[in-house]
Amino acid sequence: MITLTSDFGLKDPYVAEMKGVILNINPKATLIDITHNVEKFNIRLASFMLASAAPYFPKGTVHLAVVDPGVGTERRPILVQTSKGFFVGPDNGVLMVAAQSQGIEHVHELLNPNLMVPQTSDTFHGRDIFAPAAAYLDKGVKPHEFGPEIKNPILPQFSIVEQINGVLACEVLHIDSFGNIVTNITEKSLPNSLIFNVKLSHVALKLKFGKTYAEVAPKEPIILVGSHGFVEIAINQGSAADKFKVNLGDKITVKTS
Amino acid sequence: MITLTSDFGLKDPYVAEMKGVILNINPKATLIDITHNVEKFNIRLASFMLASAAPYFPKGTVHLAVVDPGVGTERRPILVQTSKGFFVGPDNGVLMVAAQSQGIEHVHELLNPNLMVPQTSDTFHGRDIFAPAAAYLDKGVKPHEFGPEIKNPILPQFSIVEQINGVLACEVLHIDSFGNIVTNITEKSLPNSLIFNVKLSHVALKLKFGKTYAEVAPKEPIILVGSHGFVEIAINQGSAADKFKVNLGDKITVKTS
Amino acid sequence: MITLTSDFGLKDPYVAEMKGVILNINPKATLIDITHNVEKFNIRLASFMLASAAPYFPKGTVHLAVVDPGVGTERRPILVQTSKGFFVGPDNGVLMVAAQSQGIEHVHELLNPNLMVPQTSDTFHGRDIFAPAAAYLDKGVKPHEFGPEIKNPILPQFSIVEQINGVLACEVLHIDSFGNIVTNITEKSLPNSLIFNVKLSHVALKLKFGKTYAEVAPKEPIILVGSHGFVEIAINQGSAADKFKVNLGDKITVKTS
Repeated sequence: MITLTSDFGLKDPYVAEMKGVILNINPKATLIDITHNVEKFNIRLASFMLASAAPYFPKGTVHLAVVDPGVGTERRPILVQTSKGFFVGPDNGVLMVAAQSQGIEHVHELLNPNLMVPQTSDTFHGRDIFAPAAAYLDKGVKPHEFGPEIKNPILPQFSIVEQINGVLACEVLHIDSFGNIVTNITEKSLPNSLIFNVKLSHVALKLKFGKTYAEVAPKEPIILVGSHGFVEIAINQGSAADKFKVNLGDKITVKTS
Repeated sequence: MITLTSDFGLKDPYVAEMKGVILNINPKATLIDITHNVEKFNIRLASFMLASAAPYFPKGTVHLAVVDPGVGTERRPILVQTSKGFFVGPDNGVLMVAAQSQGIEHVHELLNPNLMVPQTSDTFHGRDIFAPAAAYLDKGVKPHEFGPEIKNPILPQFSIVEQINGVLACEVLHIDSFGNIVTNITEKSLPNSLIFNVKLSHVALKLKFGKTYAEVAPKEPIILVGSHGFVEIAINQGSAADKFKVNLGDKITVKTS
Repeated sequence: MITLTSDFGLKDPYVAEMKGVILNINPKATLIDITHNVEKFNIRLASFMLASAAPYFPKGTVHLAVVDPGVGTERRPILVQTSKGFFVGPDNGVLMVAAQSQGIEHVHELLNPNLMVPQTSDTFHGRDIFAPAAAYLDKGVKPHEFGPEIKNPILPQFSIVEQINGVLACEVLHIDSFGNIVTNITEKSLPNSLIFNVKLSHVALKLKFGKTYAEVAPKEPIILVGSHGFVEIAINQGSAADKFKVNLGDKITVKTS
């Protein structure tokens, strides 16, 4: 089983070209799209998508992720072997949030030309290097056959939640298509409280901590732990991001009331 | 075989999470998307999409549909067994247009925790309750193992076409991506006529009844029975909804000329 | 294996209806979307998408493509047998760029009602005629069983690149979702040079010829051969189409410096 994540969108034939390459090598592969609508070149957002979805896939799944602003430069193509499966993509951090949470065992550079398409382009390693690597891994080719092990893959320095005098300084990790504002605060780091004071860019709110959107009346805001394990600010049947004019990357502070 | 319908969109990893859960339980499942671009919380539109597509799938297909504004409240999670297959989703009417047209046999509440993910969230029953139910049904688990039969599922009261003195009072059920205006008039309830007087919100039209868009010149309007069996107002190679400024839910009257 | 290309979009249930019909006939078919987001009725764009992706699929793949402004008129439904596989769709040129590059062997009209859905509509041959044909071809039904061979399929007259005194007169074939401007100049017809003078509608540029986007600084333009074999004008990590206000079909001239 192979999942695919990219910023290629669904208008162009790029995703299909990757799938064609995979199915040429491994006609029995099961292919599942995570998303191809990541904002262009947004490695961080892609890594969030992949880290959200990967835990639900079976052991042995190969996750292919291509958000690759450095394609054709010196950035290395890699595979990551974890305790649960494999990740394939560029060495720019996009694979690492998901891979770290599974436990990284080995990282190999993809250098073996016999495990690529015959003529690799300089602009589309997703199709020419990463897709074949995913197909061969899914077929059982061993990680060391792709290239030498490397010890210094790039690890993303996504902002850590700072806690000063009981105030959590966090930021907007993701705005989902419902307009829910997903922060980088995880369930464990949230203090135990029923009411939180939340400061967004344009507004300060006193929010009830709840378990589900529908606990508050329609169009009312709430703070809760989303299904992916991150704290989010939501509006029941409405868009919190629109109402509070919040954007990706905005700073937020949260403290108990 | 399992189909999936939702309002989750294709930017977020939610659909992939549902698929991961299904494939974890049933790695051999064939998964087909109906659409994930239903307008948020629009149960009626989702029920139209599902009812349009379901007839074309093989006997035994499991249809999973999640448009679920009441997630986490008292609304029940259900499965519907019909003469042709199964439907899984919230008890809010979204499954019922399609299920009724196949013939409903039994409805069961989904209460068995052994047929859910181990830790269900309060915000994403699509992944935690409905996806596992679809996977287990597809694997052959019997409906009564999921929970008790219920006799009072919610049936949607989508507007019935009224006919007064030969005038049909109907409404806009759907505007497709070509801009065709799909009404809730079915083929059988349309009087036999070659010309119809149609009154939309902003305009009155005398329309030729035809069999296919290309019967009229490009950019000319026509009334016909669409491939899904509902009467629609269309413009050959153009958008009727744009030209006539028609929106979802608008009232329309139709009479023979 | 069957690929699908259309202008149906992903909001409506049309693509799922085609897949349901295919899986009803051939439950073991592997279905891969090329794209369903082709601009409505844009046969040329669809033919580019199909021609870009088809080379990456295995021998024997059946390619179904439905961009069909003439549905329900006299335009013929056809299948094309090539040296590598099959193409199914309307006889309006949409199949032919891809089919010609594989080598066309036979073209048959689809006339056998036993290889269609029982009641064909006049508005949706994608579901009623083309999808069943693709499913039966994938199952091994022979081309001649679908209908008589025809010798005069429609071949598209997409603009040929003219070369006058070393100046190439070409046009914009496609703008991809990154904003890269794809021209109809192929790699072979591009003169050997390191700098090109390019004239777009609103601006004249002196561009470096490169191998990859990241060879120039972020936000800087470059001319290169894209991964599909066509010459494109791009901006590293930016949208060339937005910056230079270029649209589909615009004329461009290119000459060596």
